[in-house]
Amino acid sequence: MISDPAPPGAVPPSEGSPGTLGWQGIRDVMMDRIRARHYAPGALIPNEADLAAEFGCARATVNRALRELADAGFLDRRRKAGTRVIAEPRRKATLEIPLIRAAIEALGAAYSFRLLTREIAPPPPEVRMALRLEDDGPLLHVVTLHLADAVPHMVEDRWVVLATVPAIEAADLTRDNPNEWLVRNAPYSEGTMRCGAALAGAMASHLGCTAREAVLVVERATWLDGAPITLARQHYAPAYGLTLAL
Amino acid sequence: MISDPAPPGAVPPSEGSPGTLGWQGIRDVMMDRIRARHYAPGALIPNEADLAAEFGCARATVNRALRELADAGFLDRRRKAGTRVIAEPRRKATLEIPLIRAAIEALGAAYSFRLLTREIAPPPPEVRMALRLEDDGPLLHVVTLHLADAVPHMVEDRWVVLATVPAIEAADLTRDNPNEWLVRNAPYSEGTMRCGAALAGAMASHLGCTAREAVLVVERATWLDGAPITLARQHYAPAYGLTLAL
Repeated sequence: MISDPAPPGAVPPSEGSPGTLGWQGIRDVMMDRIRARHYAPGALIPNEADLAAEFGCARATVNRALRELADAGFLDRRRKAGTRVIAEPRRKATLEIPLIRAAIEALGAAYSFRLLTREIAPPPPEVRMALRLEDDGPLLHVVTLHLADAVPHMVEDRWVVLATVPAIEAADLTRDNPNEWLVRNAPYSEGTMRCGAALAGAMASHLGCTAREAVLVVERATWLDGAPITLARQHYAPAYGLTLAL
Repeated sequence: MISDPAPPGAVPPSEGSPGTLGWQGIRDVMMDRIRARHYAPGALIPNEADLAAEFGCARATVNRALRELADAGFLDRRRKAGTRVIAEPRRKATLEIPLIRAAIEALGAAYSFRLLTREIAPPPPEVRMALRLEDDGPLLHVVTLHLADAVPHMVEDRWVVLATVPAIEAADLTRDNPNEWLVRNAPYSEGTMRCGAALAGAMASHLGCTAREAVLVVERATWLDGAPITLARQHYAPAYGLTLAL
């Protein structure tokens, strides 16, 4: 049962004698106190020196525990104003982005792909806008169909900025697919990703479904220190969804 | 330009005199070396003591820098086997989960909601399965329509396990919507989230669209230390997508 405030004085204990808790143990005790409302939402918690004295440990150990709770969205740490319990925690979900090959093999299926299009062409306006390109010089345009046990899984329409990644022009993308080549050769420092839904439309023939089925669309754009690398739009087969960890 | 291996001996420099770099500076130099393939994919990097000597800093400072690069998916640290460059980095995307109210207000729109359904009812089999419920005792079932500038934004069909969160039965959910009440009163320790696509179907009348439009469907289930809290299935208005940071 949760959500009943703890009675006054019922501090979740720090268990064991002082000094026996590592930073993980201190983190867990502090989390219990936040959940039990021993520290009220929005309230200041004791300072690090007082907590170190209570737990019988170094201040650095308390600091490590509080940093974890701040990263997890439960505490707001301000250098001078002290540390408060976040009243309305903003939680995060995390998506592991594996290679497409690894994602399909993790489903227990055999992976294969077909390079459907490979051309050097001027990017359409929406690609220029998404990658914030300043000129309309030609990019590498590749369309790849990824299959699981020879059944269409996802079709990827990708534009690659040759000025940033010139080596891809010489790569044999029928051997290393564009997704794998870029993961191995073009690390990014920042990017955006959008998950939405669309009717399969023109992608239906690739995905082996009808144009009127709903499919998940994932669009990713990446940069390396401000230099645009690639924009990829992925249409997944109907009924496929992405799973995130909370 | 990236992806051209650096010529032998061209170690990206550590800049400035030894000891002037903080852990962030050391992280950046190490990242440059990984990108430039000075440390090859899969290869061991020097141990912490040697790096500390090179950078003229404490071993803890090197440790902090390497921990960041490991968290970001570029290094694999093993206690005895040493630290290697990950050959095929698995990158992560992060989704901030705000209150629906905050998400709508962040779009510059006025938030409102309507509680469409509130009942205590036995859960259908798929809800029991998703929450891993062991009995079929009744749950709280609420359906809420969330609006942006009075236009439908998302409809949320939610089941709440009263055995875990009994206090919600007495809550006035026409004042605090179920999403906000749970964020404030029922912290979770683990959960899953799935993003998929579906035709609007029966949700079309709530969302003000046709049944044959494609909409994003997000399903979230949460637990507190193994005790099931809630399962929510959200259907978003057509054309709406979730944005993640890479």
